[in-house]
Amino acid sequence: MTTITLKPIGQINTPHQQASGTPVQPCRAVGYTGTLTLNDPAFAEGLVDLDGFDRIWVIYYFDRAADAKMTVVPYRDDKPHGLFATRAPARPNPIGMSCVKLEKIDGLTLHLSDVDMLDGTPVLDIKPYVPTYDNYPVTHCGWTDDVPNRDDIVADSRFEKQT
Amino acid sequence: MTTITLKPIGQINTPHQQASGTPVQPCRAVGYTGTLTLNDPAFAEGLVDLDGFDRIWVIYYFDRAADAKMTVVPYRDDKPHGLFATRAPARPNPIGMSCVKLEKIDGLTLHLSDVDMLDGTPVLDIKPYVPTYDNYPVTHCGWTDDVPNRDDIVADSRFEKQT
Repeated sequence: MTTITLKPIGQINTPHQQASGTPVQPCRAVGYTGTLTLNDPAFAEGLVDLDGFDRIWVIYYFDRAADAKMTVVPYRDDKPHGLFATRAPARPNPIGMSCVKLEKIDGLTLHLSDVDMLDGTPVLDIKPYVPTYDNYPVTHCGWTDDVPNRDDIVADSRFEKQT
Repeated sequence: MTTITLKPIGQINTPHQQASGTPVQPCRAVGYTGTLTLNDPAFAEGLVDLDGFDRIWVIYYFDRAADAKMTVVPYRDDKPHGLFATRAPARPNPIGMSCVKLEKIDGLTLHLSDVDMLDGTPVLDIKPYVPTYDNYPVTHCGWTDDVPNRDDIVADSRFEKQT
């Protein structure tokens, strides 16, 4: 398989207009609300029963990310790490995943909170968040064990495409 | 953005040759080991420091999934649900995510356990698993709250492309 072609199923709208100042990860985006609107009326049927879940995974495309570099200094540290050991958006396949709160579904529009995506981000998939599948006990979290986990970490332009 | 083109960064090899009998989700795939091999020597630099993480997210392409249907009966239930309220592989953009154990890295090859992907699955991305970003307390998990969570749930051919 040489290439894979995907078509966005919708778009996220958030208050975050640019990378600089956008909270990094939903855990640091508490209080920020947004919407996810699907782009095909046929998808409404696929949303049935999703409203019973407190949280969902939104899988999306980092459409404004720069080309990937294999060594990066992530927002949370001041030392370089291998790209795949970080959650930086500039990746060979710039796919993001955020576990956000699902507040309400209104037709093709999902009302979300804890959103850390940029306004206008194309959506690739929605999945229910199920701790049995997504939470695993771990002892070691690599370099993140050695740096403080501040609540106020926000992005800057370091991984942003230059226009 | 009308279409997005991605290029796999590697391949997963597992003992699971077909959907039928493959454990559903890593939590039910304990004891199954596999490898993830990156396809570009340049990616080795991106793996630096990943070995400090006990678990990683593998983001991949369900290359043998059938076309999406908006109502599905998932493996865990005998009642139909909206596709986006399930983790079924046959989706508009058939992207899968599995939180697997990282045992060892050897050059471009990651040795994994708890693998629930089919042998030969194309890899789109690797991210470190960080509970701070990926674990959130929830009270409601929709329809999954109403069905037993059996450890022995395996897939069958219902979401598989017919060849």
